[in-house]
Amino acid sequence: MTGDIQFDGHGRLRHLLTIEGLPRQTLVDILDTAESFISFREREIKKVPLLRGKTVVNLFFESSTRTRTTFEIAAKRLSADVINIAVSTSSTSKGETVLDTIRNLEAMHTDLFVVRHSLSGAAYLIARYLPAHVHLINAGDGAHAHPTQALLDCFTIRQLKGGFDKLSVAIVGDILHSRVARSLIHALRILGAPDIRVVAPKTLLPTAVETLGVRPYSDMEAGLNGVDVVVMLRLQRERMRGALIPSEQEYFNLFGLTPDKLAHAKPDAIVMHPGPMNRGLEIDSAIADGPQSVILPQVTNGIAVRMAVMALILGGSPADEGRRG
Amino acid sequence: MTGDIQFDGHGRLRHLLTIEGLPRQTLVDILDTAESFISFREREIKKVPLLRGKTVVNLFFESSTRTRTTFEIAAKRLSADVINIAVSTSSTSKGETVLDTIRNLEAMHTDLFVVRHSLSGAAYLIARYLPAHVHLINAGDGAHAHPTQALLDCFTIRQLKGGFDKLSVAIVGDILHSRVARSLIHALRILGAPDIRVVAPKTLLPTAVETLGVRPYSDMEAGLNGVDVVVMLRLQRERMRGALIPSEQEYFNLFGLTPDKLAHAKPDAIVMHPGPMNRGLEIDSAIADGPQSVILPQVTNGIAVRMAVMALILGGSPADEGRRG
Amino acid sequence: MTGDIQFDGHGRLRHLLTIEGLPRQTLVDILDTAESFISFREREIKKVPLLRGKTVVNLFFESSTRTRTTFEIAAKRLSADVINIAVSTSSTSKGETVLDTIRNLEAMHTDLFVVRHSLSGAAYLIARYLPAHVHLINAGDGAHAHPTQALLDCFTIRQLKGGFDKLSVAIVGDILHSRVARSLIHALRILGAPDIRVVAPKTLLPTAVETLGVRPYSDMEAGLNGVDVVVMLRLQRERMRGALIPSEQEYFNLFGLTPDKLAHAKPDAIVMHPGPMNRGLEIDSAIADGPQSVILPQVTNGIAVRMAVMALILGGSPADEGRRG
Repeated sequence: MTGDIQFDGHGRLRHLLTIEGLPRQTLVDILDTAESFISFREREIKKVPLLRGKTVVNLFFESSTRTRTTFEIAAKRLSADVINIAVSTSSTSKGETVLDTIRNLEAMHTDLFVVRHSLSGAAYLIARYLPAHVHLINAGDGAHAHPTQALLDCFTIRQLKGGFDKLSVAIVGDILHSRVARSLIHALRILGAPDIRVVAPKTLLPTAVETLGVRPYSDMEAGLNGVDVVVMLRLQRERMRGALIPSEQEYFNLFGLTPDKLAHAKPDAIVMHPGPMNRGLEIDSAIADGPQSVILPQVTNGIAVRMAVMALILGGSPADEGRRG
Repeated sequence: MTGDIQFDGHGRLRHLLTIEGLPRQTLVDILDTAESFISFREREIKKVPLLRGKTVVNLFFESSTRTRTTFEIAAKRLSADVINIAVSTSSTSKGETVLDTIRNLEAMHTDLFVVRHSLSGAAYLIARYLPAHVHLINAGDGAHAHPTQALLDCFTIRQLKGGFDKLSVAIVGDILHSRVARSLIHALRILGAPDIRVVAPKTLLPTAVETLGVRPYSDMEAGLNGVDVVVMLRLQRERMRGALIPSEQEYFNLFGLTPDKLAHAKPDAIVMHPGPMNRGLEIDSAIADGPQSVILPQVTNGIAVRMAVMALILGGSPADEGRRG
Repeated sequence: MTGDIQFDGHGRLRHLLTIEGLPRQTLVDILDTAESFISFREREIKKVPLLRGKTVVNLFFESSTRTRTTFEIAAKRLSADVINIAVSTSSTSKGETVLDTIRNLEAMHTDLFVVRHSLSGAAYLIARYLPAHVHLINAGDGAHAHPTQALLDCFTIRQLKGGFDKLSVAIVGDILHSRVARSLIHALRILGAPDIRVVAPKTLLPTAVETLGVRPYSDMEAGLNGVDVVVMLRLQRERMRGALIPSEQEYFNLFGLTPDKLAHAKPDAIVMHPGPMNRGLEIDSAIADGPQSVILPQVTNGIAVRMAVMALILGGSPADEGRRG
């Protein structure tokens, strides 16, 4: 449904709003481009002039220092100018509508908006109103989508497991409210992962979750049995109050990732987490800091993946680097 | 009164504090320089190195994300380094005086301060204490002045109406408390507009407003009759409580800009608003988004005008571009 | 104790956590490098490409607009990319630990952390966890250390007094709680100042303060008698409530720096203050703005000193400038 407006008339990626409906080749192009940015960490100067003169606005209606920082660093390494706007403190408090805020920033020749919003569909709504030369990356909208997180997860999996053909992945935690889970499931299916499992208490699973192409488990040991990848989700402590889960201690006993439970996965299984972690709630520190954890490589890859999405959307690629100033 | 300190000994613009008392040629120079920056939006790379190595401090004692963003973008497109300081969160809360804050930032070799303050005269007070090589742009001080807004309004009028000689302009709304109105009236008079009208309920008109060189109207249809330009002001909702205006509904009925009322202006009249708009209070959405609205072009022109003021004040012009790195 | 981790295996400065235990030559190298940056204020373009492509994160767990701004300006003049993070608004509020925050930022390829924290030892604790290629500058930790302030103070003294050999320095105020005093005492001793005095009410002197190599005075006239340099400390108004000092008026009478009291110092004595000042509490405006005050030159020197520390730590020096882009 939302897939169409993600491309321009020439089939080029214009916005990144959701993973759902993207062609496999688009995902592969993003991962391949990100690959080319990874070597930058070894270079003396980590900057490329690909987006010099471009204006990137981080427009965060929901605060997230971590995610804002990853996009800010990615844009600056591409030499863009970055403007950070936390909307709670801006003129929407003066009665201006969100679309007027967007139109104004666009009139200042913003080239790319990076938008986070607590409402599902907000990124799509905003993108619909943008003129052809203005772009948008969804940095998380409600419980709907978080496409760059899914891409960095897939990048990390491909980097460490070589591909998706024979892959068995378990996603564990609050599937019901998780934009991370939703986007990752779409990405893994598009990239061809044959076995995708979701592991959660029944209260935290969407109804008819099988229609997403995943197999649900409410027993963690069965869910992790023989998998190559374990993706732990962050548990919002607010869920406690809603009685959707039992006590923190009971949740940890049943669904917290411990060495005992991880032993049911393949011996070389990797453990992922989108952060920020609740140590001792959804994940034991022995795992978070252990040899199977790839949580910090995920963060590193997140910069490269966001650079790749920005570069592709704004029309350049590292190969063009020589052409510009 | 304040005009003198705006120029250095060689007659060059040193600060921009107020429009009042500026020579016509200074305004024309700024508009002409802004013209040269407008074409930038078509360029692949929107950046010029005019202010490379210069430090611009946005010092906002009154919060305004929108205005701060326009100055930040303008300074970055000129390649300056920009530091944003919201003073409520700074060391004035530790008992330091405003002038000590300024002196400290100046000692860090700030080249240009962009200052917004809720007190009329604050920009002038600060400018008086700056040494010769440090500059200041007033980004709005109390009900006193907002010179860059007036300049971008005049730029937009010149762009669309060709000049000011035969111009009839109506400024509508809270004239009494508006720094935008005050600065715009001065600018239009200096540029030679023969017919400037202010339209407002009597409670929102300064006493003896005619001495500013304008004609007051409290009937909107008469005020708009035959004008080329309608400038709508933002209504501070706080005025409601002060009983200066009747209910929102009654205000909209009498002074809100609707298609019916706009029909009294010339058929090709343009509609302006400094933003942020209160849709349905001072302006109907049919007008705000209609064919006569130039509200978004104003925003675009605001970047070019602020670039022009910065470039002129800090001593360069686009023609010098070749000389520098 | 903490000195060892400040150097790498080749004896190069890796972190700046504390002055205590640094070799004299390291201090001299920093002051000499800062000297080379001072001339920049006269240059048309104040920027050098020494740290181009480097990412500097200002990580402030305790808010300080002034100190954050000095590091931000210093880093930008070296062409680094700067990310400002105020941790109270970040994901530590989501339950993430401080070390997880650091690890994440480090995984994004941060090259240098500038850390301020209200707890003594925080900078040291964080530095211990950083990998070899990631650096840290302590921008103030609790009552422990503020090394760049001590260095800029020494730079200013050397600039105006020529050296430290025959120097008599009085530090006046809340010695007990002052990281500025502590770091400055260490620096002056290492650089060879023979006469260091601390002047304060007994309640604001550490017990056995003589073991730091200083002479305590609780009479200000005696303490200032014949000194070359007077360093006034900022008095935290919070101390009032704790009954550590009498009323503001009585404190000013006894320990506030006035022309009368300063007359006991050498006629060419200089007066310093780390800012922000409480005028009329610890210092009279006649002194703060008088001919012996070097408070604003301290601020200017602070930029050069911070540029020097960053340049040395990140492995370049102005002499290398030609080699890079």
